Amino acid sequence: MKIIINQKTLAAKIGIAQRAVSSKTTVDLLKGLLLIAKNDQLKIKSSDSEIGIETYTQADVQQEGSIVVDSRLFGDIIRKLPDSLVELETDVDNNIYIYCVNSKFKIKGYSSNDFPILPEVDDATLCDLPQELLKNMIKQTVFAIAQDSAKPLLTGELLEISDQKINLVAVDGYRLAVRSAKFAQEGINAKVIIPGKTLVDVNSLLDGEENVRLGFNNKNAVFIIGETKITTRLLEGEFMNYKNLLPKEYNTKINLNTRDLLNSIERASLLSQTDKNNLIKFSIRDEIMAITSNTDVGNVYEEVAISLEGDYLDIAFNSRYLLEGVKNIDSEFVDIEFTKNINPCILKPSNDTDYTYLLLPVRLS
Amino acid sequence: MKIIINQKTLAAKIGIAQRAVSSKTTVDLLKGLLLIAKNDQLKIKSSDSEIGIETYTQADVQQEGSIVVDSRLFGDIIRKLPDSLVELETDVDNNIYIYCVNSKFKIKGYSSNDFPILPEVDDATLCDLPQELLKNMIKQTVFAIAQDSAKPLLTGELLEISDQKINLVAVDGYRLAVRSAKFAQEGINAKVIIPGKTLVDVNSLLDGEENVRLGFNNKNAVFIIGETKITTRLLEGEFMNYKNLLPKEYNTKINLNTRDLLNSIERASLLSQTDKNNLIKFSIRDEIMAITSNTDVGNVYEEVAISLEGDYLDIAFNSRYLLEGVKNIDSEFVDIEFTKNINPCILKPSNDTDYTYLLLPVRLS
Repeated sequence: MKIIINQKTLAAKIGIAQRAVSSKTTVDLLKGLLLIAKNDQLKIKSSDSEIGIETYTQADVQQEGSIVVDSRLFGDIIRKLPDSLVELETDVDNNIYIYCVNSKFKIKGYSSNDFPILPEVDDATLCDLPQELLKNMIKQTVFAIAQDSAKPLLTGELLEISDQKINLVAVDGYRLAVRSAKFAQEGINAKVIIPGKTLVDVNSLLDGEENVRLGFNNKNAVFIIGETKITTRLLEGEFMNYKNLLPKEYNTKINLNTRDLLNSIERASLLSQTDKNNLIKFSIRDEIMAITSNTDVGNVYEEVAISLEGDYLDIAFNSRYLLEGVKNIDSEFVDIEFTKNINPCILKPSNDTDYTYLLLPVRLS
Repeated sequence: MKIIINQKTLAAKIGIAQRAVSSKTTVDLLKGLLLIAKNDQLKIKSSDSEIGIETYTQADVQQEGSIVVDSRLFGDIIRKLPDSLVELETDVDNNIYIYCVNSKFKIKGYSSNDFPILPEVDDATLCDLPQELLKNMIKQTVFAIAQDSAKPLLTGELLEISDQKINLVAVDGYRLAVRSAKFAQEGINAKVIIPGKTLVDVNSLLDGEENVRLGFNNKNAVFIIGETKITTRLLEGEFMNYKNLLPKEYNTKINLNTRDLLNSIERASLLSQTDKNNLIKFSIRDEIMAITSNTDVGNVYEEVAISLEGDYLDIAFNSRYLLEGVKNIDSEFVDIEFTKNINPCILKPSNDTDYTYLLLPVRLS
């Protein structure tokens, strides 16, 4: 292969493809980027066991061909070259030569024959979603997936499309985050579980105006963002029936300023985090909620103004889980609904049904 | 003690004092900040085995007193409070109460009686240096101190003042960095070894217009920056006679663009760093110097334009040490003087005698 390409363009494309390169693998080939020069295009592919990224750009292809290069070394070299034209050339021994102004590199590569091939998802099933919306949906839920690989299905998120509505759902056994949105296209139904790591990678590539194109089959999903295609294995199995977890009614409902609540919980957390249970307590009364934490190193008492509907309540939470939920409420005021101090509560943006964060309390002894 | 103080002011002063708090110590008291309220001032002190920081600010002192608080917890709490007035109050059991708007904290502290007292340096010996100058002097030398505590004196820097000249010198056995400057005051002589960590801390506190005040005695040094005083133990012993290390003449001298040299070495380093010796080679000829590195994963050839005075030369260096020197040359062009390829070379800014970086080559087998 022999191509000539602009340094900045090449560096940007490498940066995209590198997101699927595992830093942990001991297999040299999986630390690689596959470069394919064909039809005036350079394609760059990367893959780990779960996710594959493929991106392309125009290039002056003087001789078609392909090679696998070490992702880190190749990326570091290209990024350090001057903003000029770069010539890439390979030889029959799988070396790649990099020429740019006064620099000449010769780097050992690998044959492209053994590079893992990503499954293709039939393009006919593709549907559209605004990038900004998908970005928010991921951000508001992905933190609530299970970190524990003992519950493999819960390390992913349920993506449901039906009746022109799309839901993204994460649950880890202590809390549940659901983000919903209207879905413009008719007649599309899906119910798939997408690995959390894939959603984090997709999220990091979302920053444009155009729509993301999504597609699914039984085994795989694809996200197409401009010139970049992310293919992922789906998690197979039946996701938890999360709708049954959401309480239908409440005994206590409070409404308060989201920023005030966040600040008070953050301060109270400074003490609670010195304790292994991360415990903070809400004491809900007329007009005032006290937030307290009591640990070996000291205690804290915070007050926030609320409007109360229903009963007084004392209830305790893991402050970290609570914080992560409140941080994702993007409206000025938040509603919190409780039944009893041993049942889950629900946080929602006021006057908005598109986001729901359910959290189990900690039982007080 | 009972004081009222502005949150932002208090947070800033805590940030300064925290620099001397060791994160490694297991002694609770050394993880603490000593607060002293007296004469309408709050003084904050910190100390580890080598360095002490003392800073102060005006405060509304309603009751004088002192206490030691956990540096991290206290600092985190104050930083998270709203921008308003903070009331600090202690009780006889060494608890500190923090009140601010709707927040109330009670934190366990320690008696101030056992807090280590810093040695005082007689104020009469103080002299002045511009902050900007001291900052540059430290930055251009401190990276070259020995990391190895087997050579304890070389983990510090020699500070010499004589004949209205000040030198700061670091040497680690492979390289030597000397930064000199004119020193305005007459009749001041000093020759002390300051721990490297102290210089790093001092550097991080330098960002103003006014002069730093320096003072020394046999055992200690003091740096006064505005309202902050840094006291440090000196390293005791005889520093290496570094002037003897500097070659008096050269056989080869080159002059080249500093930025071009830096870029080429940085690129060549990407390969050399894959090798344990970090080896890169200079091949000096008429008008051109080739910079090369040859490792298991590949090789690199870089060319930079030079003007040459004297003999052709092939010489090899540890690329990391070379890079650190070139990065501190702050003029557009750099001079490099060589004698033989087994003798140290010297890097200097062109037309400037205030900075000298000496580097031992690596012998080629």
